[in-house]
Amino acid sequence: MKAVGVIVEYNPFHNGHHYHITESKNETGADIAIAVMSGQFLQRGEPALVDKWHRAKMALSSGIDIVIELPYVFSTGNATHFAEGATQLLDAIQCESFAFGSEQGTIQPFLNTHSLLKKQNEEYNALIKQFVSTGLSYPQSLYMAYEKLKKLEENDYIDLAQPNNILGYHYIEAADRLNLTIKPVTIQRIQAGYHDLINTDLSIASATGIRKSLFETLNLDEIKKFVPTTTFTQLNAWCKTHNQFINWDTLWPLLRYAILRNTPEQLTQYADVTEGIEHALIKAARKSTSFSQFMTNLKSKRYTWTRLQRMITHIYTGITKETLHQFSKPSYIRLLGMTSAGQKYLSENKKSFKLPLISRVASTKDPMLQLDLRATEMYAQGLSLISQHEPNGDYQTPPIRL
Amino acid sequence: MKAVGVIVEYNPFHNGHHYHITESKNETGADIAIAVMSGQFLQRGEPALVDKWHRAKMALSSGIDIVIELPYVFSTGNATHFAEGATQLLDAIQCESFAFGSEQGTIQPFLNTHSLLKKQNEEYNALIKQFVSTGLSYPQSLYMAYEKLKKLEENDYIDLAQPNNILGYHYIEAADRLNLTIKPVTIQRIQAGYHDLINTDLSIASATGIRKSLFETLNLDEIKKFVPTTTFTQLNAWCKTHNQFINWDTLWPLLRYAILRNTPEQLTQYADVTEGIEHALIKAARKSTSFSQFMTNLKSKRYTWTRLQRMITHIYTGITKETLHQFSKPSYIRLLGMTSAGQKYLSENKKSFKLPLISRVASTKDPMLQLDLRATEMYAQGLSLISQHEPNGDYQTPPIRL
Repeated sequence: MKAVGVIVEYNPFHNGHHYHITESKNETGADIAIAVMSGQFLQRGEPALVDKWHRAKMALSSGIDIVIELPYVFSTGNATHFAEGATQLLDAIQCESFAFGSEQGTIQPFLNTHSLLKKQNEEYNALIKQFVSTGLSYPQSLYMAYEKLKKLEENDYIDLAQPNNILGYHYIEAADRLNLTIKPVTIQRIQAGYHDLINTDLSIASATGIRKSLFETLNLDEIKKFVPTTTFTQLNAWCKTHNQFINWDTLWPLLRYAILRNTPEQLTQYADVTEGIEHALIKAARKSTSFSQFMTNLKSKRYTWTRLQRMITHIYTGITKETLHQFSKPSYIRLLGMTSAGQKYLSENKKSFKLPLISRVASTKDPMLQLDLRATEMYAQGLSLISQHEPNGDYQTPPIRL
Repeated sequence: MKAVGVIVEYNPFHNGHHYHITESKNETGADIAIAVMSGQFLQRGEPALVDKWHRAKMALSSGIDIVIELPYVFSTGNATHFAEGATQLLDAIQCESFAFGSEQGTIQPFLNTHSLLKKQNEEYNALIKQFVSTGLSYPQSLYMAYEKLKKLEENDYIDLAQPNNILGYHYIEAADRLNLTIKPVTIQRIQAGYHDLINTDLSIASATGIRKSLFETLNLDEIKKFVPTTTFTQLNAWCKTHNQFINWDTLWPLLRYAILRNTPEQLTQYADVTEGIEHALIKAARKSTSFSQFMTNLKSKRYTWTRLQRMITHIYTGITKETLHQFSKPSYIRLLGMTSAGQKYLSENKKSFKLPLISRVASTKDPMLQLDLRATEMYAQGLSLISQHEPNGDYQTPPIRL
């Protein structure tokens, strides 16, 4: 059996994701698709709308055969770290290829860009420095340096101003740097851009648009046409049990308490918290009664929104720099769920996996896994604010079989 | 002007407290009464029913002329530490005497007991050791040793099995050990014992009984006859703003989050947390959905309820052993409120106070005071769970003038 891997968050799973899976299988001739999916906390430094098991069920009923968890260490990391964790896991579980959606849609320009930047690395870094010295921001300087390099050779390169092209580039770069055998494939994204809001004339909307609609209208019917029926069922089931979806607004009372319970010095111990921002965090928490107020009070030119949210994630979960920096490579493959085809793949290929497969968390003491368990527990504390139901825990939840 | 001091929590202020103030002034001939009152967290390791300003208002409208705050360091300490802080503050603000309620009702037996235990200190300690070695608990051994010593001399001694006699004894012991000039006076307690529940035939009920009734019936009218009208007004005002009274059940979601957000090793850093209990704390928090469940799961013969609640208080406020152990003596007199008579007393006597008087917290960086501000902020986080109103903060609240 042949497997293609996808790197996902499914927050929530929608028609665009379904299209991507179908195309990935077609393009690669794979028998099954394996998703490496962020757990309770996501790459933009946010809690997931619904927990990882509900999101895994959505995926398994819409074309994915195995869902494994991207450990907290990587799922909350920057693009480079995120890409390293995800590609290594798909490689470890013996995917022949991984397929990512991109604005570009063909793989050659990615490979061209990657070899250009690799070959011209010194020149690239010199150019970046030069642009930074003129007063441009670091991301702007990266982009300008790349644009300048592109002109050196006549070739097809990707547009690095497109968010999905950037992600794809990081995957390719990570897989090459780590000498993985897994091969990159890209699928043209259709209809909805990464951050596009809902356009009711189309049946594909971005996850960002879907979340916005869910939180603003509080009406699941509004997003019905943009998601598979099975996603709709899972979102409904979640709502029945927990009354509302999760975002930082939901967790705000706990987040504010966590920030104020720490001294400024203690705050700087948490992962990603840059020294100098600790007083601003406390000041903003003191004068804000909602998360959006807090972010407005905190935001400055110096930090991007995502950067701030990642700091906040680690403060919320109580994970320190010291803890997080121990880890560089994934040490396990955590199985969240599978279909019967997925199960067959696992039995047939388990022996050649490059990392141990974990189905029951109680059977392991892996310290990287402990952070995933902690993230689930901290996520669950937020749930207990809004719901009388005890939320799912890692110890109580076996892999889903669909 | 002559002042008598009282040591109080007023949780809430009731008819028994009013009687005690009237009698204390009569007995001592004092012109005014000064209360040193616990702030947001109390000696039994609990959050106060309503905040310190509401409680100060109750006191100022019922016979107290000045309310000063017993710092967190002392208000959450054991009986000895609590007594040290309270008596030193009343001495520092130049009270001639302090008056405490007791089952005994006359001062001489207290003085007799104190000089007996002071004189026979070695013998007393030897007896305690002896009883402990027979398998009795420490408090039981204390009592038995005392009972044995009492028989050595024909004299009037207090009964140390009575809770208010014990408190009074600690005040006298502290005042003597610290060489304070303030003189002890005692007032006979009437009608309601320390922990007695409400007896509707009497107009005096214990604060414990009143709280129990408030939380169980959620009906203020049930306790109306046991409190002055002004207490009733303050409790009503609180309810209108914050919807409910505060206890550990109210703060439970935050407390559970605080416990689980810490590693076992981190938990042991908080004040009063004995090494060995950290795993039990986490285990009990994991399997409990309410504070009472948590305490049932946590309780063992080894720790008293109060002892456990004090650990919990420091975990909740995030105050470590290292922080708390820096402090031994009060370093300021924090003014929470005053009547016009109180204000007159302050102007006349301010110069002879033994510690600086703090009216506005913004004007000082005293590290002991920072813990009071932190306690208020952490208390307020619980309020924000139940109420849309921003709670009172130390920076925003000037001393009450009544």
